[in-house]
Amino acid sequence: MRTHEPNSVGIVHKQYAHFDQPLHLRTGSVLERFTLAYETYGTLNADHSNAILIFHALSGDAHVAGYHTNDPDEKPGWWDDAVGPGKMFDTNRYYVICANVIGGCQGSTGPSSLAADGQPYALRFPSVTIADMVAAQRLLLDRLGIERLFAVAGGSMGAMQALQWTVDTPERVANCLFLAATPRSSTQNIAFNEIGRQAIYADPRWNRGAYYSEGQQAPEAGLAVARMVGHITYMSEHSLETKFGRGLQGHDQLPYTFFAPEFTVESYLQHQGEKFVQRFDANSYLYITKALDYFDIQEQYPTMADSLRRTSPDTKFLVVSFSSEWLYTAAQAQELVTALHTVGRTVRHHEVQADFGHDSFLVEVETMTHIVGGYLDEQWTLRGESIAAD
Amino acid sequence: MRTHEPNSVGIVHKQYAHFDQPLHLRTGSVLERFTLAYETYGTLNADHSNAILIFHALSGDAHVAGYHTNDPDEKPGWWDDAVGPGKMFDTNRYYVICANVIGGCQGSTGPSSLAADGQPYALRFPSVTIADMVAAQRLLLDRLGIERLFAVAGGSMGAMQALQWTVDTPERVANCLFLAATPRSSTQNIAFNEIGRQAIYADPRWNRGAYYSEGQQAPEAGLAVARMVGHITYMSEHSLETKFGRGLQGHDQLPYTFFAPEFTVESYLQHQGEKFVQRFDANSYLYITKALDYFDIQEQYPTMADSLRRTSPDTKFLVVSFSSEWLYTAAQAQELVTALHTVGRTVRHHEVQADFGHDSFLVEVETMTHIVGGYLDEQWTLRGESIAAD
Repeated sequence: MRTHEPNSVGIVHKQYAHFDQPLHLRTGSVLERFTLAYETYGTLNADHSNAILIFHALSGDAHVAGYHTNDPDEKPGWWDDAVGPGKMFDTNRYYVICANVIGGCQGSTGPSSLAADGQPYALRFPSVTIADMVAAQRLLLDRLGIERLFAVAGGSMGAMQALQWTVDTPERVANCLFLAATPRSSTQNIAFNEIGRQAIYADPRWNRGAYYSEGQQAPEAGLAVARMVGHITYMSEHSLETKFGRGLQGHDQLPYTFFAPEFTVESYLQHQGEKFVQRFDANSYLYITKALDYFDIQEQYPTMADSLRRTSPDTKFLVVSFSSEWLYTAAQAQELVTALHTVGRTVRHHEVQADFGHDSFLVEVETMTHIVGGYLDEQWTLRGESIAAD
Repeated sequence: MRTHEPNSVGIVHKQYAHFDQPLHLRTGSVLERFTLAYETYGTLNADHSNAILIFHALSGDAHVAGYHTNDPDEKPGWWDDAVGPGKMFDTNRYYVICANVIGGCQGSTGPSSLAADGQPYALRFPSVTIADMVAAQRLLLDRLGIERLFAVAGGSMGAMQALQWTVDTPERVANCLFLAATPRSSTQNIAFNEIGRQAIYADPRWNRGAYYSEGQQAPEAGLAVARMVGHITYMSEHSLETKFGRGLQGHDQLPYTFFAPEFTVESYLQHQGEKFVQRFDANSYLYITKALDYFDIQEQYPTMADSLRRTSPDTKFLVVSFSSEWLYTAAQAQELVTALHTVGRTVRHHEVQADFGHDSFLVEVETMTHIVGGYLDEQWTLRGESIAAD
């Protein structure tokens, strides 16, 4: 039997919440019924006041931390560094929840799920937005009996969901942790996502989304290219240079060949592409990148500040950006911070000097534990004092 | 009949130089015979001292300026803003030459050319390097009776060829104009090129490079994706934002659809992809991006300065970089400038404040005319004075 690290959440189980009620989507479409896959870590306290909802990014899922099995080769959840006893989201104190997003492919209803007619939705699945992901999660929280969240937290697309929570359901969020993200997708963000989609569209196996039948093959080649593009944007020029440089893959000098990688960075990208297609659905990639592109917190408002006026004065914000990040730049985070200040919200902003680009929020564990863990400790203590004073 | 602009070079004709002599390539392979397509503008003077060799970038060709026909819809050459009477490369004074690179698809021998067996080379074409492109051009210059060039000049991959000239044939170059480029492709440069190649490999029509037969179709979908990736890297985040923002394509509000572009930036990218596949060969794209990746002026030398010691003390350098460029960064250009200083070469460096990213060297016509035209004027005058003093 596997011996898990002492600060691991250990074995966890994926849970499913089935909803027979309709989810009214931002587009006007309706999803008549849906399922959310989710996991929880830690214990909900008696007054249900210690819940933190974490959101995953584009390629993530509900499995944030720990292990599903005793298989010693199994890798832990995608943010295992962050969630566990004594970690930045300390499961000795908090009850942590994460749900796979609507439109995803890791247990929640998405384009690969079966529609009412027993066939996969494929492109019949309605377009979803970050607001729709959040609306589905609200129903899950209702079911779990959690009225108010101590914190909503996420990096990248996860941060977009966290911010959307504070706007759409202001009274239910005490703290919003917005990490390595933007309050509105930029033109360049959209452009890179469109490359990924075009690579999938270009794969004949994609077949306009209809590739789920027996004997059909998924558009793995296109999805792999999409993933490779993503990986470049997740790393800084510096981290690429430091990690790979112009190093050669299994050769002392350039072999001058095609296909087989010549440079180690080519090998790395190909490997990332190959791994990804084993676990991700190409149609979900399309739907979720579209949701990213649609995301603009100030949509339908004259200014960003106007949109943030809908948040509660009682909600506090922690914004963390990274110096070497070029996917969601420090300037984009600053725009959010400035707008929050404009409407008088309490916001703390850390711009972290870190070399790993967008990946920094996952990689810089010590710094993030200090910033995020420290912030949560502080707010938890303040909350305790406030209750004692009542 | 078309009335060309008064400062246009007017109608020009593509010329072909056939070489029945072998070209010994850097890889050890030999191209037994080859053709270079080239164009010239202006007039070679009596002592053959006014020649400037311009090099094109990845997707360019020999058609730098002017028109091939009187068709009023024809667009001029790719750097028509730069080459003509009174322009930065003033054809009233200089004799300007540009040849399509070896490995290309616009008249020079490349993978789509016929091999000795009468069939297209396809992947039988040998790998080429920037040094091989330069070696082929040297034979063209010999044939044109030009021993020494007043200048070699190019942007992007064109600048790499210019720099390679000064190292491989130092005695033949008076001035080297190195614009918007790097002396060695970075890891990120390689990574983006690999995305383009993977998109082509992933297209089943690519068929391991064998798509030239009657009835076959070229891997246009893959090549289009490659071109779209390129376009993102050629523009700055700022220019994308300014040009497109989150503007919608033909809609007042988001239509929430796939395929058909929703955002104008998607439409722009798709259009660039579609245009490109009409004029470019996918195999050439593979070979030329590989040549870009292989490019490292200090390959086989302990330091960059050591490689540049091979240049002539009589060769002067103009290096121009752009503040918003992130494909070939100002830091990469600075590395070249520093190394040139280390070995005592005469070098002038302009870091231009410009918003258009890599495209700046083509777009910032007024600034470039001032810098490049001014530099050439000055050197031409100095040269005249030096001759008079002899």
